Amino acid sequence: MQQSTLVRLKGNLELKNPILVVGLPGVGLVGKLVAEHLVDELGAEKVIEVYSPHFPPQVLVNKDCTVRPVSNTIYYAKAKENDILFLVGDHQSTTSQGHYELCSLYLDIAEEFGVKRIYTLGGYPTGKLTYEDTVLGVANDTKLIEEIKEYGVEFRESEPSGGIVGASGLLVAFSKMRGIDAACLMGMTPGYLMDPKSAQSLLKVLCKMFGIEVNMESLEKKAEEMESILEKLKEKEEQQTIQEAKPTEEDLRYIG
Amino acid sequence: MQQSTLVRLKGNLELKNPILVVGLPGVGLVGKLVAEHLVDELGAEKVIEVYSPHFPPQVLVNKDCTVRPVSNTIYYAKAKENDILFLVGDHQSTTSQGHYELCSLYLDIAEEFGVKRIYTLGGYPTGKLTYEDTVLGVANDTKLIEEIKEYGVEFRESEPSGGIVGASGLLVAFSKMRGIDAACLMGMTPGYLMDPKSAQSLLKVLCKMFGIEVNMESLEKKAEEMESILEKLKEKEEQQTIQEAKPTEEDLRYIG
Amino acid sequence: MQQSTLVRLKGNLELKNPILVVGLPGVGLVGKLVAEHLVDELGAEKVIEVYSPHFPPQVLVNKDCTVRPVSNTIYYAKAKENDILFLVGDHQSTTSQGHYELCSLYLDIAEEFGVKRIYTLGGYPTGKLTYEDTVLGVANDTKLIEEIKEYGVEFRESEPSGGIVGASGLLVAFSKMRGIDAACLMGMTPGYLMDPKSAQSLLKVLCKMFGIEVNMESLEKKAEEMESILEKLKEKEEQQTIQEAKPTEEDLRYIG
Amino acid sequence: MQQSTLVRLKGNLELKNPILVVGLPGVGLVGKLVAEHLVDELGAEKVIEVYSPHFPPQVLVNKDCTVRPVSNTIYYAKAKENDILFLVGDHQSTTSQGHYELCSLYLDIAEEFGVKRIYTLGGYPTGKLTYEDTVLGVANDTKLIEEIKEYGVEFRESEPSGGIVGASGLLVAFSKMRGIDAACLMGMTPGYLMDPKSAQSLLKVLCKMFGIEVNMESLEKKAEEMESILEKLKEKEEQQTIQEAKPTEEDLRYIG
Repeated sequence: MQQSTLVRLKGNLELKNPILVVGLPGVGLVGKLVAEHLVDELGAEKVIEVYSPHFPPQVLVNKDCTVRPVSNTIYYAKAKENDILFLVGDHQSTTSQGHYELCSLYLDIAEEFGVKRIYTLGGYPTGKLTYEDTVLGVANDTKLIEEIKEYGVEFRESEPSGGIVGASGLLVAFSKMRGIDAACLMGMTPGYLMDPKSAQSLLKVLCKMFGIEVNMESLEKKAEEMESILEKLKEKEEQQTIQEAKPTEEDLRYIG
Repeated sequence: MQQSTLVRLKGNLELKNPILVVGLPGVGLVGKLVAEHLVDELGAEKVIEVYSPHFPPQVLVNKDCTVRPVSNTIYYAKAKENDILFLVGDHQSTTSQGHYELCSLYLDIAEEFGVKRIYTLGGYPTGKLTYEDTVLGVANDTKLIEEIKEYGVEFRESEPSGGIVGASGLLVAFSKMRGIDAACLMGMTPGYLMDPKSAQSLLKVLCKMFGIEVNMESLEKKAEEMESILEKLKEKEEQQTIQEAKPTEEDLRYIG
Repeated sequence: MQQSTLVRLKGNLELKNPILVVGLPGVGLVGKLVAEHLVDELGAEKVIEVYSPHFPPQVLVNKDCTVRPVSNTIYYAKAKENDILFLVGDHQSTTSQGHYELCSLYLDIAEEFGVKRIYTLGGYPTGKLTYEDTVLGVANDTKLIEEIKEYGVEFRESEPSGGIVGASGLLVAFSKMRGIDAACLMGMTPGYLMDPKSAQSLLKVLCKMFGIEVNMESLEKKAEEMESILEKLKEKEEQQTIQEAKPTEEDLRYIG
Repeated sequence: MQQSTLVRLKGNLELKNPILVVGLPGVGLVGKLVAEHLVDELGAEKVIEVYSPHFPPQVLVNKDCTVRPVSNTIYYAKAKENDILFLVGDHQSTTSQGHYELCSLYLDIAEEFGVKRIYTLGGYPTGKLTYEDTVLGVANDTKLIEEIKEYGVEFRESEPSGGIVGASGLLVAFSKMRGIDAACLMGMTPGYLMDPKSAQSLLKVLCKMFGIEVNMESLEKKAEEMESILEKLKEKEEQQTIQEAKPTEEDLRYIG
């Protein structure tokens, strides 16, 4: 079968204490919103494009009617103490085997750049329509857990109890064998809709960690729009018992 | 796994400014109708047969009770300024990974023949039963878009908004990395039935581009047959509200 | 991925004008019944066992509680003019790609033994509950069609119109490229149940072709049992219109 | 595609007449319960961890919020006459091909350690809510069947009639070709719920075979809990005819 393809856009990149931040599509698009917001605000540059037969066989149409393949992309930006690599993208793998293959590829890239820490970002579906300003975490190392707690991330015994499906989980677990510290940080979210409010909670934690400040205006605007939608949903809920509003298997597919 | 197989029927083919025209099965069979019509009218010759484990495990029965495997085929014909290669076939890949593999194979062949331009042909499903004499386009290059507009192809901001699934899209997007200009041209079509009328609209654009004229009689005849079927469907529509007539996911599968 | 595995049980087999007869599970189990009956009656010997990750991940339990993996098997027997190889088995491939891979493997084996002719056996589903003593054919060569007609096999223009799915079709079509004459012979069958009566029709044609005679008693006994079941189904049909008795996609999966 | 990965945790392990005991998840979790109970009670040590793209793309969260990939694990313990290797794990393969690949890998490991006998453990679904203190067996050798009968294992002609799906069956069948004696031992179980009572029946047989004794307290406690649940189910059954209580295809997926 055809392999995944890397297109390298920059040669000889020397990075200072690089951290990899992963924000691929998942529950509430929380991770994607946060990582793409940082890419924009920090003016991150494209380093590597990843194409894969494990993505949907589809192209996306730009505003000017040019097309581009579905891809994942690695960006790079300077922050305070650390250079940051961002892994963002249109889709996660559509196959189980592809998840394993792509995560292995991403860890190869992390090693190549000397990455010693990875944060994967995601959403944790609560199934409730009320918002919670909470970020949950899991990690591949107990020392790292203690360190991250300092930034207000909660660690709840054995949670998420159903495990974590997709890249956010696999990258953290398999980092261990490569000697890379890694944690998955999950903004709590109803999980039904894009959740820029949960993204803000997660972004604040991340900024504290990196010792940086970023403008949150665009996220706030998106959050206001979504909030008014949620408000309407809640009104409906008061009028009727919503049986079908429980998170479906599909919603839960990418916890984290 | 078994690889796709090429059977080469002609050696040492020297082509003059070759263009690749792709008309594989998709919405309304528009692309297939146009490309096969050109193959017939230009008396194109078979150059390569492609067999693949990504096609259905099926054989087709000829009129004389001989059988042939499901295949894609590359034909070749001389036109005015350019030699034209046609890629037509019984099926597209049945798997996501196969789409990527076969498109990569087709671009290898395009490079081998020195192709500098590719047109993939398809249908754009409107979901309405009325006919529109419009051809929509996307391309992998803005200059190419300007050039194609001259021939009456419309380019609408960010359309198709759902992207393009299958070979028509992938070939255009991945051509870019090989330095090949490519566009996908889509005849607008209700999308429910084979649409030889939309095929005629698309064919006219193509003939203008290639500076050729072809007899359209057989397409017109097919169009008349289908139109009478559409007429009957419209009559029914006036009598009742057709809820189920919306394009299904299946219909939309190969936009383009 | 793991490859298919051949276990060779006999070395240095010298065959006289060998013919390969293929009777894998399909519609009405017609092909399987015929081939296994010939294996029994001709006292054929096991030559090769084939195991494959494309078969179901399952083992079968023998009467004495020993187990064996799902497999396809090649047997060998002497007939009048020709030695005959039989390919029979528990299952066809469960995947599309596996069909292509296994058929390619079987044609490699055919070439290795110098096979110059292949007959694949199957059932042709009529969807009717009445029995027809007819064998339909397709082939990879028009001369072969003329030859086979002599034995009473019918060839109907473009039939089966839906093509042939599975090994019976692929083996015939891909034999062509290896210079092997091949035909698919299909006993007409309602297609809902195991059909030993259709198997008898097909067996008679085959015996004529090979110039051999075989005892049909066991098939006749099975046929009588099934006929009494069919009789009861027909009685029911007269009492009520059976809407759901049309052949389903599943039934049609292995035509041939 | 990415291969399965072995992480070896102990080098140069010299084993005395080693037996491999396999208890992967299946019907009633009977095999998993028995093997993990023995791992705990015999203080078995981890020897090899197996990761595979054929497992779900998921990580599991430990009590302390660290994560680990889904895996199968091989443990080792000393027993009376034999050293015992245990193969246990979170999941079986999610794909048909993965079952074949992983079983082949496990038999490679068995050969490497000089294993001459394998017992795969499982549950045999009865579909009834009453408990039977019976262990059924199949094996890859008739002599082995005679030997195992001595320990009270029942062998019923051609049972399980539907064959055995998954690793428990494949390992026994394919051991034959490697000269390894192997049997699948199945505790009879309703098959709807985790069944620690059936696990006890199976464990007793195994202890007799190995000439060892183990504390069954934890299994007994689990059994009492499950029994009270079963009791409630039975009460319900008396009140109503439960049509849907028949074992579904899903339940039967891993017989053994």
